Amino acid sequence: MAAATGDPGLSKLQFAPFSSALDVGFWHELTQRKLNEYRLDEAPKDIKGYYYNGDSAGLPARLTLEFSAFDMSAPTPAHCCPAIGTLFNTNTLEAFKAADKKLLLEQAADEIWEAVKSGAALENPVLLNKFLLLTFADLKKYHFYYWFCFPALCLPESLPLIQGPVGLDQRFSPKQIQALERAYDDLCQTEGVPALPYFLIKYDENVVLVSLLKHYGDFFQDQRTKITIGVYDPCNLAQHPGWPLRNLLVLAAHRWSSSFQSVEVLCFRDRTMQGVRDIAHSIVFEVKLPEMAFSPDCPKAVGWEKNQKGGMGPRMVNLSECMDPKRLAESSVDLNLKLMCWRLVPTLDLDKVVSVKCLLLGAGTLGCNVARTLMGWGVRHITFVDNANISYSNPVRQPLYEFEDCLAGGKPKALAAAERLQKIFPGVHARGFNMSIPMPGHPVNFSSVTLEQARKDVEHLEQLIESHDVVFLLMDTRESRWLPAVIAASKRKLVINAALGFDTFVVMRHGLKKPKQQGAGDLCPGHLVAPADLLGSSLFANIPGYKLGCYFCNDVVAPGDSTRDRTLDQQCTVSRPGLAMIAGALAVELMVSVLQHPDGGYAIASSSDDRMNEPPTSLGLVPHQKKNLKYHERRSIA
Amino acid sequence: MAAATGDPGLSKLQFAPFSSALDVGFWHELTQRKLNEYRLDEAPKDIKGYYYNGDSAGLPARLTLEFSAFDMSAPTPAHCCPAIGTLFNTNTLEAFKAADKKLLLEQAADEIWEAVKSGAALENPVLLNKFLLLTFADLKKYHFYYWFCFPALCLPESLPLIQGPVGLDQRFSPKQIQALERAYDDLCQTEGVPALPYFLIKYDENVVLVSLLKHYGDFFQDQRTKITIGVYDPCNLAQHPGWPLRNLLVLAAHRWSSSFQSVEVLCFRDRTMQGVRDIAHSIVFEVKLPEMAFSPDCPKAVGWEKNQKGGMGPRMVNLSECMDPKRLAESSVDLNLKLMCWRLVPTLDLDKVVSVKCLLLGAGTLGCNVARTLMGWGVRHITFVDNANISYSNPVRQPLYEFEDCLAGGKPKALAAAERLQKIFPGVHARGFNMSIPMPGHPVNFSSVTLEQARKDVEHLEQLIESHDVVFLLMDTRESRWLPAVIAASKRKLVINAALGFDTFVVMRHGLKKPKQQGAGDLCPGHLVAPADLLGSSLFANIPGYKLGCYFCNDVVAPGDSTRDRTLDQQCTVSRPGLAMIAGALAVELMVSVLQHPDGGYAIASSSDDRMNEPPTSLGLVPHQKKNLKYHERRSIA
Repeated sequence: MAAATGDPGLSKLQFAPFSSALDVGFWHELTQRKLNEYRLDEAPKDIKGYYYNGDSAGLPARLTLEFSAFDMSAPTPAHCCPAIGTLFNTNTLEAFKAADKKLLLEQAADEIWEAVKSGAALENPVLLNKFLLLTFADLKKYHFYYWFCFPALCLPESLPLIQGPVGLDQRFSPKQIQALERAYDDLCQTEGVPALPYFLIKYDENVVLVSLLKHYGDFFQDQRTKITIGVYDPCNLAQHPGWPLRNLLVLAAHRWSSSFQSVEVLCFRDRTMQGVRDIAHSIVFEVKLPEMAFSPDCPKAVGWEKNQKGGMGPRMVNLSECMDPKRLAESSVDLNLKLMCWRLVPTLDLDKVVSVKCLLLGAGTLGCNVARTLMGWGVRHITFVDNANISYSNPVRQPLYEFEDCLAGGKPKALAAAERLQKIFPGVHARGFNMSIPMPGHPVNFSSVTLEQARKDVEHLEQLIESHDVVFLLMDTRESRWLPAVIAASKRKLVINAALGFDTFVVMRHGLKKPKQQGAGDLCPGHLVAPADLLGSSLFANIPGYKLGCYFCNDVVAPGDSTRDRTLDQQCTVSRPGLAMIAGALAVELMVSVLQHPDGGYAIASSSDDRMNEPPTSLGLVPHQKKNLKYHERRSIA
Repeated sequence: MAAATGDPGLSKLQFAPFSSALDVGFWHELTQRKLNEYRLDEAPKDIKGYYYNGDSAGLPARLTLEFSAFDMSAPTPAHCCPAIGTLFNTNTLEAFKAADKKLLLEQAADEIWEAVKSGAALENPVLLNKFLLLTFADLKKYHFYYWFCFPALCLPESLPLIQGPVGLDQRFSPKQIQALERAYDDLCQTEGVPALPYFLIKYDENVVLVSLLKHYGDFFQDQRTKITIGVYDPCNLAQHPGWPLRNLLVLAAHRWSSSFQSVEVLCFRDRTMQGVRDIAHSIVFEVKLPEMAFSPDCPKAVGWEKNQKGGMGPRMVNLSECMDPKRLAESSVDLNLKLMCWRLVPTLDLDKVVSVKCLLLGAGTLGCNVARTLMGWGVRHITFVDNANISYSNPVRQPLYEFEDCLAGGKPKALAAAERLQKIFPGVHARGFNMSIPMPGHPVNFSSVTLEQARKDVEHLEQLIESHDVVFLLMDTRESRWLPAVIAASKRKLVINAALGFDTFVVMRHGLKKPKQQGAGDLCPGHLVAPADLLGSSLFANIPGYKLGCYFCNDVVAPGDSTRDRTLDQQCTVSRPGLAMIAGALAVELMVSVLQHPDGGYAIASSSDDRMNEPPTSLGLVPHQKKNLKYHERRSIA
């Protein structure tokens, strides 16, 4: 209870303050706007809340903000009154703490005072229902710090109660009550509003009239010493009005205290219980109107909400506890990505990355690391193809597997990798196919069974490539890359290829065939560049994406079976353990850079000479390949 | 049963072949030798097996190879006869399949034939007990392919049985049996061997004499048409001798067929059941000695073992199924590492890497990736320090965490990271400490509780640094790196520092203070280089490890609280997702390179100019730092 000070002879009128009711939807929408719209902008924002006067007894008077709070044109819910607020959302907890709350309150009070003095509040009483909301959203933890203020101008003295408060049914006859109800409803309907926050009342035994504040001149002209005003009252207490009355009384004192000695206040409370409407529990009381002339200066104001402990301090809500954890994970993953766009790369088109469908051929050392990096970029659609099972040496180098996956002969890699991605981030759409990729040089046994299987494998591979946007070649043999490279070329899919040596690697994008209308039917299927095109271009010119070669373009022999006759160290990809992480990460970063280029896979290959020019994408150069192959660099990756 | 062909009038003598009994210990030892010693060497290796003549009835005659098979000086087990073999371990399954088994058998037969002709076999009868073992060890899958051969020279014709076989108790009186037993034991003792594979026997009703083959001249001089020879017989069958008799009969025919018409064979079988020794179940038979003179050419030989299906083919044993999975995981992890030493980096000192104890300060994006790379290098001792809990945005970028780890406020990162390493590889010794690192600029509240806690944290940090070899600085603030850098410098521990920007990073080693005896007391604790040292050296000279700076060496202001007043995008390390993997991997590769340098942390910093010279370690250059900071390279990591 906030007490107005004053005359000790009569009991003083005290007001029940608002309790802020900030819905989860509000915080969710704030999060979205912060991430996508406000970013680092700390400028005040208009928001909108509402309050209700039909609550059951016992509930506190609440000012509610929902997800709709940010849409100033959103309709106010039925039977509710709007309140217009200002959001001060700070970038840091320090700024939140350091905010000058006294100043903010004074500024808001000034605006109310101006509206009172100018008469604007009579025209538009919602101007009396201002609120402030100071927030800091810790979106890493989903902790929301906030401090709510409903600025109330203070009268120069306390208001002695002349009469009441009593229930409306003790003052009005049932007939009068019914007449008030009808008059109020009619006015709302005429005005086209769900509720009237403030209104004027005139009544005798037979008639009850209500009117808008702005009509006070005509309405009150036959009144003598006392006027009656109505306030839409969110409070339930029998002895106390709610907070919205405060600024109305200041208005009344300012406007009418020279003409009237007292004001009768009807705190209009309007609830429907079990289908029966009831306004009879509204309360009525009479207070002396302070006669004194106000100084032109804005009166003192109060209104910062107390916190749960009853002290002056902010509140914090931890939404991580009540949000669906999977939903929470999705928002959190998005967060890190969106933060890139705030300051560092404002032009980054994240949607192009997040929505890309990636097919990973190979779920070994490279496949696992590529998948991990894709997850970091927020890619939601990842499909693995592999035909191996997880062996005991895998988990320490293949970061999607664990010891348990190796038991009983080992789980199929493709399936286990997809499962693991779901465990890491339930929002991902991951699938795995335990299948072989037909390879040149690896003869198919021409029994009907194996031949049929090989046919099915080719068909399935074609379908998979067709239904994805980017194909990653991450296998451990050269020749297994051939068929997917050919199929992807024919379907004009972006191919990213990564291959490891011991301390060397290559990461490259394959060239992309020209679109069909440009006539590209004369390209050989494995080699994407028409010889004539190559001859026509200087070796040193920047090469457009459709002239870039593929992994096999420099081959002088056809790919053959490289798995035959391999010694143990040739069977395993013996490589410096850090290399797969580097190559895997670079492969994904290369894909992201290509996707950011307006020409996508047709982007001209950037060379290191281009470094003096403006980079072609917000993420920099889009080279043909990134490799570490030079002899003198061979052993120098560290 | 292998049948000798010949005279259809009498029943023919048939021999029970050996069954190879290759113990798990044998394969384990082969694995070790292959990895550590043979590597790519396919040269034949001497190995040793043994056989036993005391088995219970029903067991096949086995030639057993245990872990000791590779140690030619290892003692033969009690009551067993040795067999000397040659191991042909191929590098590939193709070489295994392509091995010329006919040629290998012929070569072994030749050696036996030479030993027979020269008389060497008389001096050393073990020369008759040769065997071959052709193997291919697929150490990725723990599948061992093998083909065993016990070369037996063939007599030009089959051996007709003149008498028997009968049990020894049907031929000898109990007194004779006892006398044989004693004579055999005495001879073994005189010779100092656990058993005699072949021996000569002479007996009458009262006396039984045995002698060595080489004494045949004296021993047989009073014999007329028949001699008796004893063979230590691994076979249990009542009607058939075991395989070792075959080469002895060839020797007998070659040596003695001109003097004697037949030979009586005593297949000496010597078992102890329930404490009672029994040789009475030995068998005795007489065969005609082929009279013909042998040609000087080596006779035809047989001996390749049939496989489980009864055909001529190799066997395979899948040891992954019967090995302890955790042990298997350890061997498998070692395998990939050891393969590096086979061909690519023979001088790599893996022990220096595997045994290093690493302290990871920070278990976030960098910490997780560093730990993963350390695991790939086989590092077994990894300790995490972090004070944060896992949040929902972490798992997609921090590859030791999953969605489940985020629930209920999130597990402490340090503990969860250590747990995850154990799940990846049970052989790792991983620990985690959920603690804060005191930081300059972050004032400690001087209440006794928090002050005491800060003191404890410093003490604990000191202990941790003391008990590790390498300290990784992987935190997300600059100032948290300060105290560990100072402590590690004072304790002369190698410090590897990694820090990320958006598309920039730095990975560096801190300089290492000179050892105490060289007088380094005048260095300031945070800055490792004495100013005089710096002034004395040219900027372009190669800088020795003790003159290298630390992360703070170029600071012009003291580190302060960089976490205050940070906006959301400054709180999170907003970085290209691939970057942490690259920097984490490079940090570990840098550590490995430093460890490989003979001077360790005192190694002169390699610069790119050094690339024309021989690299200082088997893994290449050992730079001071690896960074990606230049403006024009800023956005070009892809």
